[in-house]
Amino acid sequence: MPSEVITLEGHIIDSRLLPNVLDEVIDHGGTYEILDLNIGVKHDDASFARIKVEAEDDERLLLLLDRMQQHGANREKVDDAQLTEADVDGAFPTGFYSSTNLDTEIRVDGSWIQVEHTEMDCGVVFDSGRARTIAMADVQAGMRIVMAGHGIRVTPLEKPRSGEERQAFEFMSSDISSEKPKALLVEQVAGKMREVHEAGKRILWVAGPAVVHTGAGPDLCALIRGGYVQGFFAGNGVAAHDIESYMFGTSLGVYLEKGIPAEHGHEHHIRAINEIRRHGSFEAAIEAGLFSDGIVYHLVKHGADYVFGGSVRDDGPLPDVVSDMAEVQRRLREIIWGKDGEDLIGYCIVVGTMLHGIATGNCLPASVPLACVDINQATVTKLMDRGSFQSMGIITDVGLFIRELAEALTPEEVRAVSDEAEARTWASRTRT
Amino acid sequence: MPSEVITLEGHIIDSRLLPNVLDEVIDHGGTYEILDLNIGVKHDDASFARIKVEAEDDERLLLLLDRMQQHGANREKVDDAQLTEADVDGAFPTGFYSSTNLDTEIRVDGSWIQVEHTEMDCGVVFDSGRARTIAMADVQAGMRIVMAGHGIRVTPLEKPRSGEERQAFEFMSSDISSEKPKALLVEQVAGKMREVHEAGKRILWVAGPAVVHTGAGPDLCALIRGGYVQGFFAGNGVAAHDIESYMFGTSLGVYLEKGIPAEHGHEHHIRAINEIRRHGSFEAAIEAGLFSDGIVYHLVKHGADYVFGGSVRDDGPLPDVVSDMAEVQRRLREIIWGKDGEDLIGYCIVVGTMLHGIATGNCLPASVPLACVDINQATVTKLMDRGSFQSMGIITDVGLFIRELAEALTPEEVRAVSDEAEARTWASRTRT
Amino acid sequence: MPSEVITLEGHIIDSRLLPNVLDEVIDHGGTYEILDLNIGVKHDDASFARIKVEAEDDERLLLLLDRMQQHGANREKVDDAQLTEADVDGAFPTGFYSSTNLDTEIRVDGSWIQVEHTEMDCGVVFDSGRARTIAMADVQAGMRIVMAGHGIRVTPLEKPRSGEERQAFEFMSSDISSEKPKALLVEQVAGKMREVHEAGKRILWVAGPAVVHTGAGPDLCALIRGGYVQGFFAGNGVAAHDIESYMFGTSLGVYLEKGIPAEHGHEHHIRAINEIRRHGSFEAAIEAGLFSDGIVYHLVKHGADYVFGGSVRDDGPLPDVVSDMAEVQRRLREIIWGKDGEDLIGYCIVVGTMLHGIATGNCLPASVPLACVDINQATVTKLMDRGSFQSMGIITDVGLFIRELAEALTPEEVRAVSDEAEARTWASRTRT
Amino acid sequence: MPSEVITLEGHIIDSRLLPNVLDEVIDHGGTYEILDLNIGVKHDDASFARIKVEAEDDERLLLLLDRMQQHGANREKVDDAQLTEADVDGAFPTGFYSSTNLDTEIRVDGSWIQVEHTEMDCGVVFDSGRARTIAMADVQAGMRIVMAGHGIRVTPLEKPRSGEERQAFEFMSSDISSEKPKALLVEQVAGKMREVHEAGKRILWVAGPAVVHTGAGPDLCALIRGGYVQGFFAGNGVAAHDIESYMFGTSLGVYLEKGIPAEHGHEHHIRAINEIRRHGSFEAAIEAGLFSDGIVYHLVKHGADYVFGGSVRDDGPLPDVVSDMAEVQRRLREIIWGKDGEDLIGYCIVVGTMLHGIATGNCLPASVPLACVDINQATVTKLMDRGSFQSMGIITDVGLFIRELAEALTPEEVRAVSDEAEARTWASRTRT
Repeated sequence: MPSEVITLEGHIIDSRLLPNVLDEVIDHGGTYEILDLNIGVKHDDASFARIKVEAEDDERLLLLLDRMQQHGANREKVDDAQLTEADVDGAFPTGFYSSTNLDTEIRVDGSWIQVEHTEMDCGVVFDSGRARTIAMADVQAGMRIVMAGHGIRVTPLEKPRSGEERQAFEFMSSDISSEKPKALLVEQVAGKMREVHEAGKRILWVAGPAVVHTGAGPDLCALIRGGYVQGFFAGNGVAAHDIESYMFGTSLGVYLEKGIPAEHGHEHHIRAINEIRRHGSFEAAIEAGLFSDGIVYHLVKHGADYVFGGSVRDDGPLPDVVSDMAEVQRRLREIIWGKDGEDLIGYCIVVGTMLHGIATGNCLPASVPLACVDINQATVTKLMDRGSFQSMGIITDVGLFIRELAEALTPEEVRAVSDEAEARTWASRTRT
Repeated sequence: MPSEVITLEGHIIDSRLLPNVLDEVIDHGGTYEILDLNIGVKHDDASFARIKVEAEDDERLLLLLDRMQQHGANREKVDDAQLTEADVDGAFPTGFYSSTNLDTEIRVDGSWIQVEHTEMDCGVVFDSGRARTIAMADVQAGMRIVMAGHGIRVTPLEKPRSGEERQAFEFMSSDISSEKPKALLVEQVAGKMREVHEAGKRILWVAGPAVVHTGAGPDLCALIRGGYVQGFFAGNGVAAHDIESYMFGTSLGVYLEKGIPAEHGHEHHIRAINEIRRHGSFEAAIEAGLFSDGIVYHLVKHGADYVFGGSVRDDGPLPDVVSDMAEVQRRLREIIWGKDGEDLIGYCIVVGTMLHGIATGNCLPASVPLACVDINQATVTKLMDRGSFQSMGIITDVGLFIRELAEALTPEEVRAVSDEAEARTWASRTRT
Repeated sequence: MPSEVITLEGHIIDSRLLPNVLDEVIDHGGTYEILDLNIGVKHDDASFARIKVEAEDDERLLLLLDRMQQHGANREKVDDAQLTEADVDGAFPTGFYSSTNLDTEIRVDGSWIQVEHTEMDCGVVFDSGRARTIAMADVQAGMRIVMAGHGIRVTPLEKPRSGEERQAFEFMSSDISSEKPKALLVEQVAGKMREVHEAGKRILWVAGPAVVHTGAGPDLCALIRGGYVQGFFAGNGVAAHDIESYMFGTSLGVYLEKGIPAEHGHEHHIRAINEIRRHGSFEAAIEAGLFSDGIVYHLVKHGADYVFGGSVRDDGPLPDVVSDMAEVQRRLREIIWGKDGEDLIGYCIVVGTMLHGIATGNCLPASVPLACVDINQATVTKLMDRGSFQSMGIITDVGLFIRELAEALTPEEVRAVSDEAEARTWASRTRT
Repeated sequence: MPSEVITLEGHIIDSRLLPNVLDEVIDHGGTYEILDLNIGVKHDDASFARIKVEAEDDERLLLLLDRMQQHGANREKVDDAQLTEADVDGAFPTGFYSSTNLDTEIRVDGSWIQVEHTEMDCGVVFDSGRARTIAMADVQAGMRIVMAGHGIRVTPLEKPRSGEERQAFEFMSSDISSEKPKALLVEQVAGKMREVHEAGKRILWVAGPAVVHTGAGPDLCALIRGGYVQGFFAGNGVAAHDIESYMFGTSLGVYLEKGIPAEHGHEHHIRAINEIRRHGSFEAAIEAGLFSDGIVYHLVKHGADYVFGGSVRDDGPLPDVVSDMAEVQRRLREIIWGKDGEDLIGYCIVVGTMLHGIATGNCLPASVPLACVDINQATVTKLMDRGSFQSMGIITDVGLFIRELAEALTPEEVRAVSDEAEARTWASRTRT
C-alpha cells in the first residue's frame, strides 16, 4: 500500500489539530501510525508529531494528504511543487492544487515562496518568481499552475494561548447563541473596531437590507463619518431602500402604511430607482440634489470603496449596481486586498445578510477577523462554518446592535445628523 | 332547515367583523342571507347588519352561532340564558357555554349581567346575582353554569378609529417582522409603560431565562426599582440562573467557561439551588445574606406579586417554585386581576418565553394590551395568534431591548447599581 | 380638496376587497364617502360599491388611487390612458404607471386593450395596437409608456366561491404552519400537477441545493422522466452538487466525510466544476461521458427549458450558468411565458430556495398557482407575501416531500433508475 | 499551590478527551504538566495519560477536578468516597457530589461500587451496600450522601472505533442539518428500532402535538400495534388533540375550518376535554365508547407505559394528566428504568417537542441512544447538547418521518386501520 510521512507542529493537542488530522485519515479509509510524538508538558510548550499514513491506492492517498493539509499537516519529504501550464482559458489543468484560506507557501527551485492573496477554493499561479491565488474563471492558457502534491506548505491556525485572551475568545466565539450578554458583545466588537482603526487598517462592512429597515441607517452613517467604514459590499436592495427613504423625506406616512417596505417594491421604491436611473449614477443623482443623506450618500461623500452587486430578484437595478457576478467578485477582491493588493482589510463585519456574507467569506483569508451579526441563528451558523478561529457569530437585532456600536464609538456631535439632512430624514424624526 | 337571525354592529366593514362572520358561516357549511345592511358612509360612522343564518340541523346551527359569537355577532332574539347545575366536580355539564376573552354579558331574569374576569375557554358560573368565568377544574357540583345558546352577548374588539392612532397601531402590530425600526418600537413600549404607570395601573412581566443570559438582569432590576414591574411570572430557570449569578459574585470565570449556562445545570447552578433549598425560601435566603441583588432579590424587596411555575424539566426546583400546575394557574389569575379581583393589570410584557407567554395569554382578557418580545419569529407569531387588536409582537434581541427600555424609563441614578451590590455583580462589571 | 369616484365590484365583502380599499384610504390620510353599496344578500351574489375619495392635494390623491387600484378599485370616470414617450434608455418617464401582477387593461382611443405578460413593478409599453409590460432596464427612448392615472383597469383576484373548493383552499393556504397533515398536502400538490399535466400545460420548478442534499435528486429525475418538469430555474450550486454526486459515482465515502457538502466546496466540488468548464458546456460534458444521470442530465436529455443563474457566492461557475443578472431575468421570463410568449406555464413549484423563489414570484402573473415548499418558515412566509390567492405555502422536509410526490405521480418503472445509471449513483444505493 | 495527579485512558486523542480535559484546566485558571503520555501508535491502540494539575487554592482545585471528571479524568490517588448524612429533607449537604450521566462507581471500604440509575445533576446516596442517584427533592435527612472529592470514578464515552461504524455515526450525528439524505436517516432509525425490538428491549417515545397535527397519528398507532412503542411521554395537548380528532369522527369540516387546531382550544377541543373529565379517566371513557381509535386508545389497549405531564398553559387538563411536576419526573424515571428499576429502555425517540425532550434528556443515562426529530433546528440543537455520542439529531417533517418509519417497520396489514376505527377516523380518510 502506498504511504507517506507527514509532520504536524504547534499546539496540536489543544487546538485539536492532531485529532482532526487522525479523523480525516480514518474517515477516508486510510490507516495511520504515529512515528513520533513530542507533547509539550506545559500549556505553552509546542508539540510535534510525525505520522505515517497509508491508503489503498495512490489516488486515495493523494486525496488524504490534501485533506490533512487543510489542517496544517504537511508532507515530511520536501520537494519542489509541480507546475503545469494551463491548457485552456477559464479552467485549471486536471490535478491542480485547490487552495485553502490559510497561509500557504510553495516550493520552487528549492526555495519556499509565500502565496499572495490566500483565498479558498482557488488555484495558485506562479509567475516571475511570485505566486498568487487565481480564480478558475481568470485562468488563461499558458499560465503556470501549481499541481496538488509536493512542495506546498500550509500553516494551521491555532487557538489563542494566554488564559485571559483565550477565555474571552472561547466565550465569544465558541457557542453561537442568542442568549449571550449583549452589552459585552457590543463592547468586544467596538473594541476590535477601535483597535483596527487606530492601526490604520480598513474595515469592510457587508450589509443586508435589514440595516435600513431596522432603522440603523443613521447609526451606520455616523460610523462612516467617524471613520469606521472604508469598504462596503451589499446588494441593490440596500441602496434602493436607503435612497428611497431619503428621497421621499416626508414619507413617514408611506412607511407607516405597511410597517416596512414590501419584499418587492411598492410605488416609492420603484419610482426612486427609476429616478436614479434617469440620472445615470449615484454621484450624478447626488449632484442633482436628489438625496443628501443616507448610507449611499455618505459612502460617496467619504470616499469609501463600495460595490453593490446585483441579484436575480432585483428591481431596476440602480445604475451603480454591477449585474455581472464575475465582475462583482473581482471588485470585492479589490476591496479586500486594496487597490494595489497590499492593503488587506483589518476587520470584516457582516450584518443581516447571508448571500453577501458567504460571498465575502469565500474570498477572505483566514487571518482577517470576522464578526457576523444576524437575528437568525441559521444565517450566523452557516457563515461561521468557514472555521476561522478569529470569527465571532452574534445572534442579535441588527438595528439595536449598530445603534449601540455607534454610541460606543462616535461622539455625540458626529452622531448628530446635520440640520439640512435632518429636515429630510424620516428616521431621525422618529427618534427624537 | 333550522335558522336564526343574528345582528352585528359597529365598524363591521373595516374591522373585518362582517367578512369574518360570513366566512364562518360558509366554512361550517351553513348559508346566509343579509336581511339588512346599513353601512356608515363615512369612516367614523358605525354600521349595522341583520343576517339570517341556516344550517342543516340544530347542532350545526348551534356550533355556527357559537363561532359567529366569537366575532361579536349576537342572536337577535333576546331570551334569558339557560342555567344548568353542574352534576360533577371538575367538569361542566355537557352543552356548557365556552367563553371568549371579549367583554361578555349574560341575561338572567330579563336583565343583562356583566361577566366578571373574562377569560377564554372557561365556563360561566352564575351565583347570587353575579356571573364570572370559571376554569373547568374549579367547577363544583351544584354550581349554576351558563349553557350555550340564548342570553349571551359579546362585544367585539374594533380597530382604533382615528387616522393617526390607527397608523401607529397598524405599523406596530399588523406585520410581525424582525425588520422594523427598533428605536421606534422601544419608544412605543416605553410610552405605553409610562402611561400605564401614571394611571396607577400595574404592569405584569412574563419572562424567560434569556432575560438573565442576555445580560438584561440589571436593567430589569432598574425597572423594578423605577416602579415598572408589579407582577412577575416565570419558571424555575429564570430564578435559578438569576440567583446563581449573584451568589457566585466573582464567577466571571465560570460564566466565561462555556459562554452561557448549559441547558441543564452545571456545578454552580445545582449548588445554588441546593443552598436556597437548604434555607427553605427566597426570603430566608436573602435574610441569611446568600444574595443581595438580582431580579428575585428586587421582586422580594419591592413587594412585587410573583409566581414561579415549575416544569417537568426543572432542576431542584427552588423552594418558592410552585410544582402543581393548577395552583400556578390560580396564582397567575390572582396576579392578573389583583388580590380582590378588582385591580386588573394595565399592561402585560412577555419577554423570551413561549410556554409562560401562552399560559398568560390564555388567562388574559382581550382588553389588556400585550407586548411580546422574542428573538424568534415563531414564538412571537404563536403568541400573537390570540388575536387581540391591542397586542404588539416585536422580534428583537431581548437583552438590548430591555436595556434600551431601562434607559428610556429610569433616570441614571436608579439604573446605577448600589455599591454593595456592584461588588457582587458580574454583569455590572462587564458593562463598565 | 381634490376627489375622485371609484367603483369596486365582485365579492367585495368576503374577499376583503372593500375593507382593504377603505384601509388604504385611511392609511394614506384620505377620507371616503360610500355613495352606493349594493351587497349581495346570498353567498354567491356579487356586490357593487361606488366610493368618493378625497385627499389634501392632487399628488396624494394620485398615490391613493394607485394604491386602491392594486386591490381592483378602478376610477369610475372613463378616459384614455396617457401615453408618454420615454426620453432616456433604461428608465421610464417620471410619473409612469407601475404595474401589478393582476389582469390589467389600458384604454387607448376609446377601447380597452389587454396588457400582455402581466408582471408586477414593471411599466406598460403601447406599440402597434398592443400593450405589454416592460422591465425598466429594457426601456428604449421613444417607446410609448403608459402613465399613472386614467384609462387603466385592474381585475382583482377573488377567493374561490363554492363551499368545498373554498374549504380546501382555506385549509391549505391561509395558515402557513409546519403542523399540517402532510399526506394531504402531498396529495393536493400531486393532484394539481396531474391536472396541469393533463391540460397540456407546462410546470416550472424553482429549486435550491437542498433538493440535492436531502437525497431528492433521483425522485426529481423520476418526475422529469414522467413529464412533470418542463421549466427549471436554479443556481450554480444545484447543478454543481448534482453533477458532482454523479461524476464521483463511487463517492459514498466522500459524502460521509462531513455529512453534506460544505457551504463552500471541497475537493470534489471544485474539481467537478473545473472538469465541466474544461468541456465548455453541459451537453459537451454529457457527450464526453462525464456524467450520465442526475437532474442536469435529465433536463438536457428531456429537452426541458432551464436557466441556471449565477450569484456572487458561486464557485466556478459552471459553463451553462448565466452570470449576468439582467440576462437571467430575460431567460426566466421566456420560460414563464414560453418561447413565443403565448404558452404561459400552468404551475410553479418552488422548493428549498428563497432567492430564486422571490425572483420568480416577481415575474409571475397572479393567475399562475404557486406552491412553495421549504423546511424554514421564514422562507415560505416571505415568498407567500406576494398575495396570490392561489398560492400554497408548505413547511416541510424538501427531501421527503419530493419523494412522496414522485411516488404519487410516477409508476414504479419510471422511478426505477436505469442499470447503467444505478452503477454510478450513490443515492440510489443508499436507498436499497 | 495545591495540586493533584489525574489519569485518563482510552482513545483519548481522537475522542477529544485529552484536549477537552486540558481546556478545562486552562479555562478555570489552572495549570497542568503532562507527566506521562503513552499514545497508541495505531488507530485501535488505547492511550494513557498522567497529568499533574495545579490551581491557586483548594476550592478552585476541587472545582477543576470535578469538571475534568465529567470528561472521564479520574484522580490517580485512590481513596474511599466521603459519605455525609443529609441534615435536612429535600436538599443535599453542602459539598455533595453532583452526578454526570456517565457510568460511575464510588469506592466504599476499599471496593468500587457501581452507581445505579446514572442521571445527571443528581446526588448519590449510599445505603445497605448499594449506591444510586437521588434527586434533590427526594433527599431525606439521615441519608448517607456521597461528597465531591475522592473515591469517585467515571468512565468516559468514546467514539465508535471501526471505520465503517464510525463513518455512519459521523455522518448521522456530527452535523445537525436539514440538508441530509432523508431516506437514509429513516433507514438508520428504523434499523435501530428493529434491533432494539429484537433484543427485547423497550422503546420510549417522547412526543409533541405536531405528531397529531401533521397527520402522523395513524402511523404512530401502527407502530404501537407493531410493538415499537413501550413507553410514551407527552403533554396534555397531545392527548387532547388526539382524542378530540377521534371523538368528533365526522369532524373533517372542523379541522378544515382553520387548517389546524388553534394554539388554545376551540369548541371541540374544550368540549372533548370536558367529556373525558366527566368520565374520570381514559379507561372509563374508552369503556363508555367515547373513542375507539387513536394514540391514547392504542396506548391503553396495548398496555404501554405512559405519562402525560401537565403544564401551566393546559386546558382542562385531561383526567390522566399529572399536574404535579415532581410526580411527573418520578413517573418518567420509572418508565425509563422499568417498574423494578432493572429494565432500562433501549432507545428513546423524541419527536416534535422541546420541553418534554429536555426533561427526558435530563433523566436519561448517556448509554441510551437517542434520536431527536423536529422541523426546527433550534429545538434539535438544544436537545443534542447533552453530548451523548450515541445521539442523532434529525431536522425534518415529523409527519412524513413517522409515516416513512411506519412503512419501513410494519406490514401493510398492521398499518391498515380496522373497519370500525376507520369509520371514525378523519385522518385515514384524508389519505385514501
